[in-house]
Amino acid sequence: MPHPTAPERAPSGRSAPARRRAGRPGHDAESVLRTSVRVFNERGYDGTSMEDLARALGVTKSAIYHHYSGKAELLRRSLDRAMDALFAVTEEPGATAGAAIDRLEHVLRGSVRVLVEELPHVTLLLRVRGNTPVERRALKRRREFDRFVADLVREGMADGAIRPDADPEVAARLIFGMVNSLVEWYRPGRGLDAEALADQVAAAAFTGLRRH
Amino acid sequence: MPHPTAPERAPSGRSAPARRRAGRPGHDAESVLRTSVRVFNERGYDGTSMEDLARALGVTKSAIYHHYSGKAELLRRSLDRAMDALFAVTEEPGATAGAAIDRLEHVLRGSVRVLVEELPHVTLLLRVRGNTPVERRALKRRREFDRFVADLVREGMADGAIRPDADPEVAARLIFGMVNSLVEWYRPGRGLDAEALADQVAAAAFTGLRRH
Repeated sequence: MPHPTAPERAPSGRSAPARRRAGRPGHDAESVLRTSVRVFNERGYDGTSMEDLARALGVTKSAIYHHYSGKAELLRRSLDRAMDALFAVTEEPGATAGAAIDRLEHVLRGSVRVLVEELPHVTLLLRVRGNTPVERRALKRRREFDRFVADLVREGMADGAIRPDADPEVAARLIFGMVNSLVEWYRPGRGLDAEALADQVAAAAFTGLRRH
Repeated sequence: MPHPTAPERAPSGRSAPARRRAGRPGHDAESVLRTSVRVFNERGYDGTSMEDLARALGVTKSAIYHHYSGKAELLRRSLDRAMDALFAVTEEPGATAGAAIDRLEHVLRGSVRVLVEELPHVTLLLRVRGNTPVERRALKRRREFDRFVADLVREGMADGAIRPDADPEVAARLIFGMVNSLVEWYRPGRGLDAEALADQVAAAAFTGLRRH
């Protein structure tokens, strides 16, 4: 790596001074990942080439290879970030101790928080179709997460807190259908914040729309 | 068009006799549309060429042009089929007369039925990103549908049937987040039928998971 203050050629003619002032986004691993994920979400992972990523970043392909072995690693890092954050919620005390319905609410609220904080990574995760080994591994982790949630619903039905006529698998999918829909319409900084959004989702999932 | 019983070259070497026995699927407008939508859903609309469609159908491109002006018309027909079916639900008596919460339930159940019956078309609709005029028109119709639903929630809050702390726009999006999630996990002929599925969705949306 060149010394940070050493003079160097701009990677492209356009807006190099602005880039330098802003800490040269496009050069560090995190901003390469962030921009790549944005492009994957816009064009689809399959439809994006390393050339497309280099163009969007305003760097050469070798500048990307300096940080990542290729497109598949960028995808894996993004999907792992989303799944690691979701699994971290399932290991918090609120998800491991107490009544099943309260643990379920903790996981639901934590998932909303993860979606808001890691929106581009979760968006990419939810669009994965399983065409590559990295995608299939992410789908496998998603199924594990779904099972964790369905088990909480089942436990809550057994202890009487959850409606006995619920179908645990279907209920788990429906409530996460609500959570996951956030990637389609929620825009951070507009409308509700993460906490208010979690309140709405939890009320919708546990109380439903009808006034009791 | 050649006479149906006249001898003709098979459009591809593979399974031509089987295709002829089954009424030559791939040749009529409906099966061209059905196969095209399947390919769009697998590869994305942007990533699919007329060549890809001709190959998947085992016909020449001109056989497709016999029925459709091109890719954009196939997309439009598919998205219209999904949206027309959803709007038809909003015009049924159950959606236009009675208490707002009951009309909302009618629209919710009707939407589940449309998703199950028109699954490939609704799947395509929900993946549209607005890159072309046809897609932007479909997104505009989706927003109209969302407004119809949000207005029902608002009306149900005003007459006291729906929780006063609901946010009409957010609630409408969350319950349709549940409904729309069906395209990701529901497979017709496996598990619940459309009616049982509608029961689960309606119970989840109106009653919630908690036992009251």
